[in-house]
Amino acid sequence: MFVGNQPGHIDQIKQTNAGVVYRLIDQHGPVSRIELSRLAQLAPASITKIVREMVDVRLVRETEFQEIGSRGRPATGLVPDTAAWHFLAVRISKGELALTLRDLSSRCVVEDRLPLALDDIRPLQYRILDEIDRFFTRHQQRLERLTAIAITLPGMISSASGIAHRMPFYPVKDMALGPLLQERTGLPVYLQHDIYAWTLAESLFGASRGASDVIQLVIDENVGAGVISGGRMLHNASHSLVEVGHTQMDAAGLPCYCGNRGCLETVASIPHLLERFAAESRPALHQPPTVQQLCVAALQGDTLAQGLIADVGEHVGRLLAVMINIFNPQKILIASPLNLAASVLHPPVRKAIAQQSLPAYSAAVALEETQIRSQDTLTAAALITSALYDGSLLLRLLQG
Amino acid sequence: MFVGNQPGHIDQIKQTNAGVVYRLIDQHGPVSRIELSRLAQLAPASITKIVREMVDVRLVRETEFQEIGSRGRPATGLVPDTAAWHFLAVRISKGELALTLRDLSSRCVVEDRLPLALDDIRPLQYRILDEIDRFFTRHQQRLERLTAIAITLPGMISSASGIAHRMPFYPVKDMALGPLLQERTGLPVYLQHDIYAWTLAESLFGASRGASDVIQLVIDENVGAGVISGGRMLHNASHSLVEVGHTQMDAAGLPCYCGNRGCLETVASIPHLLERFAAESRPALHQPPTVQQLCVAALQGDTLAQGLIADVGEHVGRLLAVMINIFNPQKILIASPLNLAASVLHPPVRKAIAQQSLPAYSAAVALEETQIRSQDTLTAAALITSALYDGSLLLRLLQG
Repeated sequence: MFVGNQPGHIDQIKQTNAGVVYRLIDQHGPVSRIELSRLAQLAPASITKIVREMVDVRLVRETEFQEIGSRGRPATGLVPDTAAWHFLAVRISKGELALTLRDLSSRCVVEDRLPLALDDIRPLQYRILDEIDRFFTRHQQRLERLTAIAITLPGMISSASGIAHRMPFYPVKDMALGPLLQERTGLPVYLQHDIYAWTLAESLFGASRGASDVIQLVIDENVGAGVISGGRMLHNASHSLVEVGHTQMDAAGLPCYCGNRGCLETVASIPHLLERFAAESRPALHQPPTVQQLCVAALQGDTLAQGLIADVGEHVGRLLAVMINIFNPQKILIASPLNLAASVLHPPVRKAIAQQSLPAYSAAVALEETQIRSQDTLTAAALITSALYDGSLLLRLLQG
Repeated sequence: MFVGNQPGHIDQIKQTNAGVVYRLIDQHGPVSRIELSRLAQLAPASITKIVREMVDVRLVRETEFQEIGSRGRPATGLVPDTAAWHFLAVRISKGELALTLRDLSSRCVVEDRLPLALDDIRPLQYRILDEIDRFFTRHQQRLERLTAIAITLPGMISSASGIAHRMPFYPVKDMALGPLLQERTGLPVYLQHDIYAWTLAESLFGASRGASDVIQLVIDENVGAGVISGGRMLHNASHSLVEVGHTQMDAAGLPCYCGNRGCLETVASIPHLLERFAAESRPALHQPPTVQQLCVAALQGDTLAQGLIADVGEHVGRLLAVMINIFNPQKILIASPLNLAASVLHPPVRKAIAQQSLPAYSAAVALEETQIRSQDTLTAAALITSALYDGSLLLRLLQG
């Protein structure tokens, strides 16, 4: 390609190979060295060397196991030594800071969910640094060796530099949270947009595991998407996002904060939907409805609620039909609290896809719900697993 | 990423590094070994070794040149030795087979354009093999060492296996042209969809050179697109295409051969456009109009022709607005014979983009014409250059 490959160095091979071996142990363990050599297509001597280094720093350990089909004595296999290392997974969202200490298998060790005031005058980055300090102090008896910190948040993010340029809800401008936290803790810090990280998390731990071509559409406060094409996240090397929430659905529609009119977000976001539900309910509701109430009403046969959710499905389906023609995905994941009423939301999506996208592509697409809750810091954990599998974080741990 | 890296081997490093060095010599030559070492971030000893191998097989050669800012004696620089190696670039299109012998700089040595009957009963692959045989016989005095054969064609193509599953115009089913030709000639054969190859060619030799994020929209017999995202071709590892021609524009529109209705292709393809022009012209035309006549009429103020072309611009603009929100490209290239009337076609495209895509993305997008003619076998040549730059073809040449 015209942008050109980067030249290769021995360190990069080492990184890549260590990542491959760790991923195979994580996904297939317990697994013997011979089997690893076969799976990784690496010489037994290389496997022995890589594994020895990983055992030395307690990233993997040996265990005895009975090989399938064998009645002989147990073989020696390798499994991840996940409890010896911890990392911190952080989620910044509207009014909440979630901090989860996890081991390397992403299992939760301890989690705190703290209020994060929207109108505090102290800069957001210092409030977050303080809360992380306190978290570590509070739970210091439970801490094993720390590997890294991963943070997800909404907004315009430069992942490579660890900077949040702008955020909704908080008055942030070019907040250098990554570098600050890295300096304070000495740990590598991974900062990423929450929809991007969620898409990665579903591919590692959730509904799109093993699929190489995926569209994950989020319908929530905002409307956005993550795309995996050919086994890679779209925009993995830039701070662009898949901004499908600003697809124009109606040139004469409501004005959108982006500057245009009739964007998908103005007809399909949850706040918009609840507003319409409140405005059109007869008799009038006593208080603003929740999305759960809207979904339950639709499931119980309320035609207004059903119509509103079906309308979202039609609009989203129209967009997804275009995206299917572009990406030819195996799987589409709907990520939304509206999945509570999936039996109302999904059929119009399926219908729009069937009528509006290339039959050769749409016929083979599966439409499913996400499995991970948006509030879960597993989305941040996916950034760590990804950095272990590509070898970049792993190499740091091996080098102490 | 979940799909996982492939483990690295010494051969892969060698391939990557040889590709990087060749690309730098091709793009910057004459360039000194010291400068190469700096540009490639490789040790001088590695550069010396790689360059020696390339000089030995006459892929690069030394030349004396005056370094910029230097008044001393000329330095020794490296340039590609492009004339020593040839390749064959082939384009299969509706009724025509173009065969061009090119040197490694993609310069045309000799070209034949031959009729390729649509209704011949002999299988297409054997007709093509015969024509290639005759081409080599006809021009054998002009042949230098042959490196490879590159072929572009429309249809459903598996590039990795060299198979054309289906083609428009020709009754083809799973035609194994790549493997057949490889067996017959002993040369590596690159087979690729013509829109994909054209997008690559514009990025290497044409209007999108140096841009890492590009949408190239083709409006011709068919409507399609190629996308470059983060410096990589979308679908570079699959046989999916960006099938935007089948975006539904009008649920009540004309039936499309894909099985749906009102696809972009039914309102914007050239055959459709000429049909409408013929049907609505008053007085009636004596014979079917050509796309050149349509464009000239529009440029001369014919309101029917102007309206038809502007209508295409609006439809295409609506699609591009969605694609901009997804890909955030630096550049959009319009690839179409309608560019002859660019002053009529482009303004409505720009208007739709400005009104319907995220202002933060659309404000920075350049809209331009492609520079390479669709009939040019430079599109096939791009496959060869790309395989030299990524090192895969280069390594074969180095190994003899």
